Amino acid sequence: MKAIHAEVITIGDEILYGQITDTNTQWLSAALSQLGIKTIRKSSVGDRYSDIQSILKEASQRAQLVILTGGLGPTNDDITKKVLSDFLGKPLIQNDDVLRDVDYFFTSRGRVLSDINKLQAFIPQDAVALRNQYGTAPGMWAEHEQVIFISLPGVPYEMKGIMNDYGLPALKKHFKTPFIQHQIIRTAGIGESVLAEQIKDWEKALPHFITLAYLPSYGSVKLRLTGLSENLAIVEAEIKQQVKKLLPLLGDKYFYAAEDINLEVHIGNLLKATGKTIALAESCTGGYAQHLITSVPGCSAYFKGGIVSYSNEIKEQELGVPKSLLEQKGAVSPEVAEAMATGILKKFQTSYAIAITGIAGPDGGSVEKPVGMVCMAFASDSGQVVSKTVQFGKERDTNIKASAAVAMNLLRLGIEGKLS
Amino acid sequence: MKAIHAEVITIGDEILYGQITDTNTQWLSAALSQLGIKTIRKSSVGDRYSDIQSILKEASQRAQLVILTGGLGPTNDDITKKVLSDFLGKPLIQNDDVLRDVDYFFTSRGRVLSDINKLQAFIPQDAVALRNQYGTAPGMWAEHEQVIFISLPGVPYEMKGIMNDYGLPALKKHFKTPFIQHQIIRTAGIGESVLAEQIKDWEKALPHFITLAYLPSYGSVKLRLTGLSENLAIVEAEIKQQVKKLLPLLGDKYFYAAEDINLEVHIGNLLKATGKTIALAESCTGGYAQHLITSVPGCSAYFKGGIVSYSNEIKEQELGVPKSLLEQKGAVSPEVAEAMATGILKKFQTSYAIAITGIAGPDGGSVEKPVGMVCMAFASDSGQVVSKTVQFGKERDTNIKASAAVAMNLLRLGIEGKLS
Repeated sequence: MKAIHAEVITIGDEILYGQITDTNTQWLSAALSQLGIKTIRKSSVGDRYSDIQSILKEASQRAQLVILTGGLGPTNDDITKKVLSDFLGKPLIQNDDVLRDVDYFFTSRGRVLSDINKLQAFIPQDAVALRNQYGTAPGMWAEHEQVIFISLPGVPYEMKGIMNDYGLPALKKHFKTPFIQHQIIRTAGIGESVLAEQIKDWEKALPHFITLAYLPSYGSVKLRLTGLSENLAIVEAEIKQQVKKLLPLLGDKYFYAAEDINLEVHIGNLLKATGKTIALAESCTGGYAQHLITSVPGCSAYFKGGIVSYSNEIKEQELGVPKSLLEQKGAVSPEVAEAMATGILKKFQTSYAIAITGIAGPDGGSVEKPVGMVCMAFASDSGQVVSKTVQFGKERDTNIKASAAVAMNLLRLGIEGKLS
Repeated sequence: MKAIHAEVITIGDEILYGQITDTNTQWLSAALSQLGIKTIRKSSVGDRYSDIQSILKEASQRAQLVILTGGLGPTNDDITKKVLSDFLGKPLIQNDDVLRDVDYFFTSRGRVLSDINKLQAFIPQDAVALRNQYGTAPGMWAEHEQVIFISLPGVPYEMKGIMNDYGLPALKKHFKTPFIQHQIIRTAGIGESVLAEQIKDWEKALPHFITLAYLPSYGSVKLRLTGLSENLAIVEAEIKQQVKKLLPLLGDKYFYAAEDINLEVHIGNLLKATGKTIALAESCTGGYAQHLITSVPGCSAYFKGGIVSYSNEIKEQELGVPKSLLEQKGAVSPEVAEAMATGILKKFQTSYAIAITGIAGPDGGSVEKPVGMVCMAFASDSGQVVSKTVQFGKERDTNIKASAAVAMNLLRLGIEGKLS
């Protein structure tokens, strides 16, 4: 069977020119995908009659559902409703329910209903008004040559409110939709190309109704399996089967979660479950690794704190790194990273500690220690100390974020007892 | 003169399904409009050959410039390059410069160049490679029937890097765009609407060829004056005139730079010029304020380091905050913020120090100390100690970033001697 295809269109110059961020299309396509409706294209056009008219024509030839957001305000530059009514070949007529809504919206706020606002109550003949309890512009539902058109205001909380209240339930009822099942597999410590090489036979053997996507970010690759079928049981069973085949190929050093959680959250879960605590000592990452840890709500349960020892003086004074070691091995060395980790572990009395020292760049490198060289160490109150040295590139911000990501994975492996 | 018309296309199921946020199209269309190039449509399609093929055809009939992002990875689901080469009617051939880049990218990181990665070096014949110093997938520039096609990787920092390094300068040269003169005025500590009210008469009086944009970010508003004309001298002179009128209206407590530098860079310049040093003590911001400071190259000249004292135990132990004070006033109080600031100042022996303590949320608030309440303090080795309490909202990530931004401005004002 074929999936229901949808197109999402945002209307407004401010989005087209990059003056405001469009959050509506992401929310809409995610909501549709939950209904098993597949977004096949998203478009943004400006507030021009001909542009809106042509995207309506094009989209209605490709999809069975066309959702428009924006351009429903009462001002002159908002023309979506006019274009839509011409496209449908239906005049704009006053809708009494909407007029009551708009009237109530103003009077309940002690304001007077202006003639301009009365225009909000006009919608194309035969269209269904999707009432707006959050603002004055109603949504609209219209059918035209077997295509459903939904027009929504651009203000995100009004758009979402209308869709949650009326739009999504109506879509669920109207389309006998197939089921889309997503399964996220989170990996860390393996690059996209190596990972792809490692699972390519499995990927080739996937059934036609299951697709795979690689979603890489700093130090981690997210795998997304998407199954599409009218039989939920079949998709669920098949995805479960495929995951069972996939996990052994990944190996438990790279795989860390069969749900969409980042390493910081996963680490937090591990620590909360065991009642363990952590502290961090950072040099080149300058606090960014601790920012990742503290971006997780409730992290105070396991994160005591840390030290950013940017100068050698502070590495000695606060972390007890021996001056001799700094002089012999240099601040960027596995030995100093290990001394920093054991230093913060003892000082903050935690179960685990991570330390990071490196050359973030763009300057400060040398032949034997180029920009992008970063040393990290994991230390545990059991006495285990493991260090790791990575070579990144020349770009400072990337080096900082990539180092922190790799350090998170080192911490994860240490907590999971997978370091040796 | 007629504006150059552009279309921006993002490729990838993850954006279509709403699983990741597309920040690329907003950045691109904003960057293009800075060149006087007008985005007339944005589209997102999935990783399917026919969808990419048809959007390429459509866009090239409407615009003189078509920019594609995404789908350039080495894995099977990334097919943009194949579609583009077929569309251009040019076979994919190996580009030696790119091969060297990719090879260097891996070998310099002590990794082996896999066959899959070698594929990154293939681009359509006659296309110009836009070299990628931030990743392995090169950008591409091709001309076909008077339309310019630029294909870029989807990873935002790679895409932006390539466009800043090669794409935007090349576009400026290729399309004889009118002279565009920008003047940035950086302010901090004043909200957009208050600022707009304060300068509205000046704004109204701007000549037609000068436009003003308010670019707000956490705790600061960037004003961008844009002059567009065929006569460079006229624009430059007029902008200089307008800035001279504007600055007195802003006042030197809010205005801090007539160039596009953020507070961290500005603070770094002040400290380097005076040979002063800083240290930070953070609680609720969890290292993010130090990340801002250390995002500036060369910050080791003035930043000694800091402490993330997430637990009260660490606030006492490391910063010498009296237990009694923590009990009487609570960890989130101006008094504790001041004690943290003076504590880190003494311990790290710096000229200045900043401390931040608050309730980032989403939980942990109370009636008298709600989520989003944040106390900050500035301390100087001259003995000056100034604290400031701000009430933010309920969203953790926003509270962390906004607190750090306000702290940066407190530090700036302290260094500039504008606190009292």
